[in-house]
Amino acid sequence: MQITDPFELILFGGLGDLARRKLLPALYLLHRDGRLGEGIICAVTRQQLDTDEFLARIEQALQQYVPADCLEPQHWQAFSARLRCVTLDLQQPEQYRQLQQALSSTDINRVYYLATGSELYTRICAGLHSSGLILPRSKIVLEKPIGHDFASAQAINAAVAEYFTESQIYRIDHYLGKETVQNLLVLRFANSLFEQQWNQKYIDHIQITISESLGVEQRAGFYDQVGAMRDMFQNHLLQLLCMTAMEPPARLDPDAIRDEKVKVLKALKPITGTAISDNVVCGQYDAGVSDGKPVPRYRDEPGVQPKSLTETFVAAKVEIENWRWSGVPFYLRTGKRLPDRTCEIVVQFKAIPHSIFPLQHKNTMANKLIFRLQPDEGIRLQLCEKRVGPGMSVRLMNLSLNPQDMRKVRVPEAYERLLHDVLSSNATLFLRDDELLEAWRWIDPVLQYWQASERRPEPYTSGSWGPAAATLLLARDGRLWEENS
Amino acid sequence: MQITDPFELILFGGLGDLARRKLLPALYLLHRDGRLGEGIICAVTRQQLDTDEFLARIEQALQQYVPADCLEPQHWQAFSARLRCVTLDLQQPEQYRQLQQALSSTDINRVYYLATGSELYTRICAGLHSSGLILPRSKIVLEKPIGHDFASAQAINAAVAEYFTESQIYRIDHYLGKETVQNLLVLRFANSLFEQQWNQKYIDHIQITISESLGVEQRAGFYDQVGAMRDMFQNHLLQLLCMTAMEPPARLDPDAIRDEKVKVLKALKPITGTAISDNVVCGQYDAGVSDGKPVPRYRDEPGVQPKSLTETFVAAKVEIENWRWSGVPFYLRTGKRLPDRTCEIVVQFKAIPHSIFPLQHKNTMANKLIFRLQPDEGIRLQLCEKRVGPGMSVRLMNLSLNPQDMRKVRVPEAYERLLHDVLSSNATLFLRDDELLEAWRWIDPVLQYWQASERRPEPYTSGSWGPAAATLLLARDGRLWEENS
Repeated sequence: MQITDPFELILFGGLGDLARRKLLPALYLLHRDGRLGEGIICAVTRQQLDTDEFLARIEQALQQYVPADCLEPQHWQAFSARLRCVTLDLQQPEQYRQLQQALSSTDINRVYYLATGSELYTRICAGLHSSGLILPRSKIVLEKPIGHDFASAQAINAAVAEYFTESQIYRIDHYLGKETVQNLLVLRFANSLFEQQWNQKYIDHIQITISESLGVEQRAGFYDQVGAMRDMFQNHLLQLLCMTAMEPPARLDPDAIRDEKVKVLKALKPITGTAISDNVVCGQYDAGVSDGKPVPRYRDEPGVQPKSLTETFVAAKVEIENWRWSGVPFYLRTGKRLPDRTCEIVVQFKAIPHSIFPLQHKNTMANKLIFRLQPDEGIRLQLCEKRVGPGMSVRLMNLSLNPQDMRKVRVPEAYERLLHDVLSSNATLFLRDDELLEAWRWIDPVLQYWQASERRPEPYTSGSWGPAAATLLLARDGRLWEENS
Repeated sequence: MQITDPFELILFGGLGDLARRKLLPALYLLHRDGRLGEGIICAVTRQQLDTDEFLARIEQALQQYVPADCLEPQHWQAFSARLRCVTLDLQQPEQYRQLQQALSSTDINRVYYLATGSELYTRICAGLHSSGLILPRSKIVLEKPIGHDFASAQAINAAVAEYFTESQIYRIDHYLGKETVQNLLVLRFANSLFEQQWNQKYIDHIQITISESLGVEQRAGFYDQVGAMRDMFQNHLLQLLCMTAMEPPARLDPDAIRDEKVKVLKALKPITGTAISDNVVCGQYDAGVSDGKPVPRYRDEPGVQPKSLTETFVAAKVEIENWRWSGVPFYLRTGKRLPDRTCEIVVQFKAIPHSIFPLQHKNTMANKLIFRLQPDEGIRLQLCEKRVGPGMSVRLMNLSLNPQDMRKVRVPEAYERLLHDVLSSNATLFLRDDELLEAWRWIDPVLQYWQASERRPEPYTSGSWGPAAATLLLARDGRLWEENS
């Protein structure tokens, strides 16, 4: 599907890390696949660059981040003709006028993409407003993290709302752009086999893991202020939780779906007081081995404060207080310097009530449905089958996509999907204001408790699956994290 | 697992079609895999053969029916040393004495395998008895078809029961020896995901198909007397129905399982009177094309009577009158000269109650679990997933065994399993007397009605999926056979 409405896309932070690694490659690929429709892309940058220099920088980024077999000279030629560069100091309101010259004077499908820190959002909105650049059809895209707690998120929401109506605001969480996350909606709501059992009567528990093998890398300055709870848990993990746990919406429209997601966030059992240390584990990586190489501890990384208490790992046991999920724990975790870069949602069904076969551990043989978002995308269903040969011994097997069904098409990057959606004014995969605030509202007591108690994250060896307390979080319920079972 | 109890296996019809094609190859493969334990195989034949001639015949059969890479000289050497030949006219009781010389005089693990027509069963039992060859530990294996209606099956059962107790009698239906049929037990009773939905609340209908692309071939003389109802439906199709529909047994023991199977047969809704023409379709193949070659009509096959009314195709809509299955039709069919040689059980779940996605036909997108027994064995689960790319369009996909899980072991032939089981005295996969009789009791009214009404089977073109009435049998319920959907 092509974008039918001619557009102007203005990227703030137009030559920044996110633009170079994700946004411009995604736009190029949409263009190349003939899906970008008509429109221009305007990169806003502080640096003064002539056209050749500007295009050379972008071509370099594409060479680095687009698959080599997708980079054809004729496509680059046509794509580069759509690129504009506007130099602008975001702090200087009067400079926003320069944008006017690059843009049309009429009210068209215009998208301001704020790929900057959230502390700049209000200023950018004010600058656009004072230059008369916000028209009824204009939209704005806000990158996460939006704020660092409930109050700051609320303040940003309120400030942006002075200039844009809620329906003009697109809050992005790129995890929602992943094919498998959207497939989760189809797998749940287009298959009776799963949805009929998607509740506390049939499901034992659910695990959601986002793990990175990398350490803090070049982001130390930012990350050390933020930590895993704000950087990954508050947004990505809670969004995946919502998609997994939501009730079936009545229609496939943005508000029907977001209403259901907000209901999940509102039903989260608050974790406060002493329940925090029982149900939330935080860790910080120690020296160890990653990808076969020795790596330093977090506190020794350049840019990290030597006595930093910032967590690089969080695991939590979360409960949802409604009819569907009462009594079904959701175990969520994320961390840096773990053994693999993976993202998986594991839905474990209850064990069979009675076995006529000689099973050693009924629980470890329970059925599991596993959604994999990273490094590759796919689903598999873990079942028991008869071991081939005499007798009736039982073994685990995986049903997964049939090789003859394997997708021959390239799986689009999350940002391709999301940019396409915002340019087509489809808000389904973007966060509404109340969703964002409910997530912060639930996280806030934990952040406050941590700060007040000066909690020290448990150290864990780089290359391990986090601190021992994370294993214990499940073990005391008689369960295991997926990779240990 | 090896057979631990030294045995004597006596094959009546020892050089017949079944012995050459199935039994001796299966025994050889068990021997080769080190699973046959200690014991001798004694082929009973009418022909006078010297040892060299006898062994040459068997070697020839193995060369024809055993995979070439399993035929090693050293294994054949050792296997042939276990083979005995006894010449015997089965009609002459006094000749059975000759068997005594080949067998031990003590009561050991002895199996008489009757690979002959069922009209000989009584005579063979009497012969063995009069020579004192039936001892407490002796067992007897009866090949299908046992009888040609309820009365004859009952008479054979009664006659054999004069010489053998029920626990000594092993009635074989080789479909029960197929890996996937046994796997059906594990998939149903070791996986909560399926068994929780294995009832009328969640299942729309079930289809069981056994199709052959071959015509009547060399069996015309036998087949023309018998037809598809007796040759395939009464035994194989009803057995697969029982395995699919049975309640969970409390234990994995022969009688617990067979009790449940008999309960299914007893719960079959009788098809009598006018319900027969509404619910049972019979056909006879006409000329047509099979495997790309023109083939004659059934009545023109050598050995078939020119005005034969024998059916080569049967399809039936069957209902089970119990809490689990009330209202769920089972569509069963079998036939010769159909497009493929296949055997499949298709469990179709109910469609989702409400779709938020643009689906064209909610019913054709319903979830299906498909057990394939022929030509290859395996299972697959048909689900809906998101089509990769923009939008939210839904497509069917198949989850099947993961390539990395693909069995690297040879899947044993059904007869290997069953011979191993009878030599180990495990009766789980054999039919009990009441099972056999209940199947005949349900079929009898149909056979009688057909005979009384001189029904003419509907002609169908060779290479098609049977007569139009078979399609209509489902179409009038708003359904389609699996290959047409």
